[in-house]
Amino acid sequence: MTFFDSDYTAGAHPKVLDSLCRTNHLHTVGYGCDQYCKSAAELIRKACGCDDARVHLLVGGTQTNATIIDGLLARHEGVLAAESGHIAVHEAGAIEACGHKVLTLPHYEGKVRAEDVKRYIDDFYSDDTYQHMVAPGMLYISFPTEYGTVYTLDELTALSRVCHSANIPLYIDGARLAYGLAAEGNDVTLQDIARLSDLFYIGGTKVGALFGEAVVITSNTLLPHLFPLIKQHGALLAKGRLLGVQFEALFTDNLYMEIGKKAVAQALTIRDTFTSAGFSTAVNSTTNQQFFSLPNTLIDHLKHCNISFEYWGPRGAEQSVVRFVTGWATTNEDLECLADALKSYKR
Amino acid sequence: MTFFDSDYTAGAHPKVLDSLCRTNHLHTVGYGCDQYCKSAAELIRKACGCDDARVHLLVGGTQTNATIIDGLLARHEGVLAAESGHIAVHEAGAIEACGHKVLTLPHYEGKVRAEDVKRYIDDFYSDDTYQHMVAPGMLYISFPTEYGTVYTLDELTALSRVCHSANIPLYIDGARLAYGLAAEGNDVTLQDIARLSDLFYIGGTKVGALFGEAVVITSNTLLPHLFPLIKQHGALLAKGRLLGVQFEALFTDNLYMEIGKKAVAQALTIRDTFTSAGFSTAVNSTTNQQFFSLPNTLIDHLKHCNISFEYWGPRGAEQSVVRFVTGWATTNEDLECLADALKSYKR
Amino acid sequence: MTFFDSDYTAGAHPKVLDSLCRTNHLHTVGYGCDQYCKSAAELIRKACGCDDARVHLLVGGTQTNATIIDGLLARHEGVLAAESGHIAVHEAGAIEACGHKVLTLPHYEGKVRAEDVKRYIDDFYSDDTYQHMVAPGMLYISFPTEYGTVYTLDELTALSRVCHSANIPLYIDGARLAYGLAAEGNDVTLQDIARLSDLFYIGGTKVGALFGEAVVITSNTLLPHLFPLIKQHGALLAKGRLLGVQFEALFTDNLYMEIGKKAVAQALTIRDTFTSAGFSTAVNSTTNQQFFSLPNTLIDHLKHCNISFEYWGPRGAEQSVVRFVTGWATTNEDLECLADALKSYKR
Amino acid sequence: MTFFDSDYTAGAHPKVLDSLCRTNHLHTVGYGCDQYCKSAAELIRKACGCDDARVHLLVGGTQTNATIIDGLLARHEGVLAAESGHIAVHEAGAIEACGHKVLTLPHYEGKVRAEDVKRYIDDFYSDDTYQHMVAPGMLYISFPTEYGTVYTLDELTALSRVCHSANIPLYIDGARLAYGLAAEGNDVTLQDIARLSDLFYIGGTKVGALFGEAVVITSNTLLPHLFPLIKQHGALLAKGRLLGVQFEALFTDNLYMEIGKKAVAQALTIRDTFTSAGFSTAVNSTTNQQFFSLPNTLIDHLKHCNISFEYWGPRGAEQSVVRFVTGWATTNEDLECLADALKSYKR
Repeated sequence: MTFFDSDYTAGAHPKVLDSLCRTNHLHTVGYGCDQYCKSAAELIRKACGCDDARVHLLVGGTQTNATIIDGLLARHEGVLAAESGHIAVHEAGAIEACGHKVLTLPHYEGKVRAEDVKRYIDDFYSDDTYQHMVAPGMLYISFPTEYGTVYTLDELTALSRVCHSANIPLYIDGARLAYGLAAEGNDVTLQDIARLSDLFYIGGTKVGALFGEAVVITSNTLLPHLFPLIKQHGALLAKGRLLGVQFEALFTDNLYMEIGKKAVAQALTIRDTFTSAGFSTAVNSTTNQQFFSLPNTLIDHLKHCNISFEYWGPRGAEQSVVRFVTGWATTNEDLECLADALKSYKR
Repeated sequence: MTFFDSDYTAGAHPKVLDSLCRTNHLHTVGYGCDQYCKSAAELIRKACGCDDARVHLLVGGTQTNATIIDGLLARHEGVLAAESGHIAVHEAGAIEACGHKVLTLPHYEGKVRAEDVKRYIDDFYSDDTYQHMVAPGMLYISFPTEYGTVYTLDELTALSRVCHSANIPLYIDGARLAYGLAAEGNDVTLQDIARLSDLFYIGGTKVGALFGEAVVITSNTLLPHLFPLIKQHGALLAKGRLLGVQFEALFTDNLYMEIGKKAVAQALTIRDTFTSAGFSTAVNSTTNQQFFSLPNTLIDHLKHCNISFEYWGPRGAEQSVVRFVTGWATTNEDLECLADALKSYKR
Repeated sequence: MTFFDSDYTAGAHPKVLDSLCRTNHLHTVGYGCDQYCKSAAELIRKACGCDDARVHLLVGGTQTNATIIDGLLARHEGVLAAESGHIAVHEAGAIEACGHKVLTLPHYEGKVRAEDVKRYIDDFYSDDTYQHMVAPGMLYISFPTEYGTVYTLDELTALSRVCHSANIPLYIDGARLAYGLAAEGNDVTLQDIARLSDLFYIGGTKVGALFGEAVVITSNTLLPHLFPLIKQHGALLAKGRLLGVQFEALFTDNLYMEIGKKAVAQALTIRDTFTSAGFSTAVNSTTNQQFFSLPNTLIDHLKHCNISFEYWGPRGAEQSVVRFVTGWATTNEDLECLADALKSYKR
Repeated sequence: MTFFDSDYTAGAHPKVLDSLCRTNHLHTVGYGCDQYCKSAAELIRKACGCDDARVHLLVGGTQTNATIIDGLLARHEGVLAAESGHIAVHEAGAIEACGHKVLTLPHYEGKVRAEDVKRYIDDFYSDDTYQHMVAPGMLYISFPTEYGTVYTLDELTALSRVCHSANIPLYIDGARLAYGLAAEGNDVTLQDIARLSDLFYIGGTKVGALFGEAVVITSNTLLPHLFPLIKQHGALLAKGRLLGVQFEALFTDNLYMEIGKKAVAQALTIRDTFTSAGFSTAVNSTTNQQFFSLPNTLIDHLKHCNISFEYWGPRGAEQSVVRFVTGWATTNEDLECLADALKSYKR
């Protein structure tokens, strides 16, 4: 079987796993107060170019989003997000379970536009009944988006400006950050992310860790009492050093970025394989997730060839949209299997 | 340094870690729907003697308590617990953050009594203003308790009866279940736990896993829609198979119980070392946590000898209560270090 | 000043106020357990044709919506509503504050369509990731809607069928129920409302009471423990009999329906006044709220004539949408003032 | 029937009701933005000696407590209160439903002691695990307490100092404030309450209003976005002017204080009636609630004489504790009825 279903179907990158094994027998204090978490935080601060950012290592993405969003918002505020955003669609109501409305904006292949954010905020405060509605208290975006697209530096700068003139924080969900930074044509650096947002997270689960996300808070007045919130929202690990050990490995010798580069290169190869065979992409993704509109007969054929990938939905009667994802565990043999399977398809 | 601080200061038992390494490169579906989770569930069902119990593997203890308690209680209900219970003291308000009051009962070395539970419920419903108060909707106990004590089979049976005649579920927090089952003089089996409670969890984090707790639901009408609740409460892992792999290892060849037995035997050795040297226990614990009242000069001496343990609080001017905990990583050399350190103490 | 701003700008209908004055010195038990609440409930049951419905009298509309929706939904569920629905827009996040997402449907002048509800539910359960999303747990509609429109009997029957085949309750917000029942061309009776929904509320605040809404629960298995929920959600009044006294008055001698009829007739007169003068309605409302697109110069002129009404928003450069509302306190003199003001307008 | 059950069994004081009737036909804007609310706020500010206090008029006591406490606390904080405090016992879990734990302190006839508050806070922050517990974020007290007792000026000053040195707000529940200010031997003025607390509320429901509580915020940085919180917590009234009209009446010609004085004098007469007949008080209350330990035979006899009061619980086999409460509606004839009934009792 060859797997392109997702970037969280395999375990940890070998270097990450090695670190876990090498440190397994050591005793440390719990809950993230150990030397590995400190060291990981220091490495992350350096990579971000933010000497005084606070870094917290949390268990997973849903937990991180719930902790951060609930921590940032006042009771009367909601979070602005693309209507396709993960928190708007796929958090099982975890944001609302904390008491907050997700205020949705139109999306353009997963991205929101600064002018839409500005208009939402302006319209809100110019409505006479605004006190009876949910105030926009922060902006959530993802980099890359759920559609595999990335914001340009100009777009990100514009969003940052709109947020800061409205005095609301900009939070970036970086569940797949490495793949965004390695995206074809991307002009945004990790330092830009750190500089333009108020806080963001660097995804580990989908980029070579067993689990774990690193929250980086650059606006230092935000979230003064984060620890108990982390615990309340299920984002705390008793053996917290497991997160430190993993992120230390990921931020040593540029491993995190290398994983991103390799997987994106492989994803673009997949894209070329399909497009040069005459099939078309469904979204202009430049990252490790590629979406295609394929004939249903081809989809059946690929499955027959033991190629596993994700079905997204029908497009007309004879085609469907599917998703192919690469990750640290994707091999060049996997790509060849796919290419071979495609060659053997008779239209 | 010799560590007796807690049972979650080291990584995973070598057999658990081996399983994680051996399966690391495999691809599986996410969120606990893989074959390892299924296999672990099957092994746990067998160990519990409950062929039709539902088993869910969750990330950690706080997450499990929040998910289960919030899932079981109606909006107007609270959870009965010992005033020393983990959910009453050390969950950072995670239960209240879900909207529920913890209704506290007196404790006797960490245990609650069936007659106190009955009286609470009877008094509640005989109060004319009960509709203005929080109804007791379930009972939470821990086995073993936060004081290292265990319920006898008679005590557990009595609690089960009181709950069932009041028609409220009995939930057992088994964060350290293996150590309770291996307790000196214990007459309760895992099957008894399964039979007498409506649901409980088998702790992995403190018994040889990197992390993870196995919820076992024996009352099958409870919690019909658990999956989204698991996600909402931060208890879901994307790479869910990590939980399956670990619990499969723990429930193969009786490993879970063996870890418990070894650690309890070591803890009782520590107890004997102290008591035969003339020091007294602070609690009648029969499990892997031992509490002593020691002279402050001895405490200083042990620290000087690089023995690490937990300080609980002063007892009078010259003594303090301390906690020593054993776990899978405790070695006999650790015990000898402690014994040597104690011998070299000059009163 | 002549007021058409809303139906809650004046106090109580004189008969309601008389009842409050007449009973003011009497002593009764609190919290709605008195004879007036019982008598009001009985009158309401009769009017609804539901001998065994449960009737609860709550303080206000937001409180009622929060209590009922939070009480009906399981933790993993959200409430389906028109994207223009009051709970989706104007409850200040009170529904999300209880932990629930409002799942929005397209609206057609405030109304939702049975086929859209069905499609939402079908699509939800046929999505492979549905467990990661918020399940549709009930349908909220308002009668009349926020746009002053009413469902036909056929439409309401279709919605009821869709809900019941999906096994989710249908809840009707009747904040302005009397005006809906009195709507021009309406073919739905109070008995139909009771028969086709699972529960609904009869609005008092906007129909002649000082405050108060009567919840009628016809599906008797729903909301078994409502009292503490009413208190938790701020919907309980210590001097609960004030609600009973008012609803007793409203449901004596058909007063509730008479208030509706009078105000709707007046609103339709206003509509005719504008349309026969050549101005157009902005919505096809048949109830006590009328929306017009008027030249901005006319709007200024009316204000100059001391006519007060609500501004809704611009329509193009020279026109705006405005709302005129009638209620128990609207007099025929008010209508004449408006007609005179309109006559004196020079285009 | 002669009623001493509670101070909320009758309607409004005649002057309050007159104001409601006199203003009933007027039109005003909704939600508390009208001239009556403004005028009431101004009168209250003057009475409190706080020219720049913010005053908000809310529907009821539970709603007020939930709004204020939820608004003041951060997510990781709880509210300190006497274990007998209303929010700890009789709010149906409304505080926990907002996500906050009530942290209980020992009580002395309903009062908490400054040294206990200080010790709680000191102990909390000196505990190594404090980040895993709920932080004390504010202090809630009631004046008078649920036992009818009042704090002395010294006690209140000490509590204020402890709170302010710990940097947590002091909030006073004044549901029965008038009766506390009129208490026998009381040395605390309304101005003291305003000066020593950060915010408090002046109860209307139990002191002559149909309903309504006036929140007075003297620490002006607190609760900057209160309006939507008021709505979220069910404390907002559409016809908000009803609250303004009532509090305007209560704060005109000293009515609020007069109601308190009269009722307290009557309560003390009741106390004297019982004690001079040889019966004893159960609590040293100096306000409008009086608690007695009476023989069960006397209790039966009084009921026989159509005297209505509240049963609190048994005291031994032959006696029970009962509560007698006076209010604006208590008449001197009521007191005579009681005295006569007592005289006719044969031991």
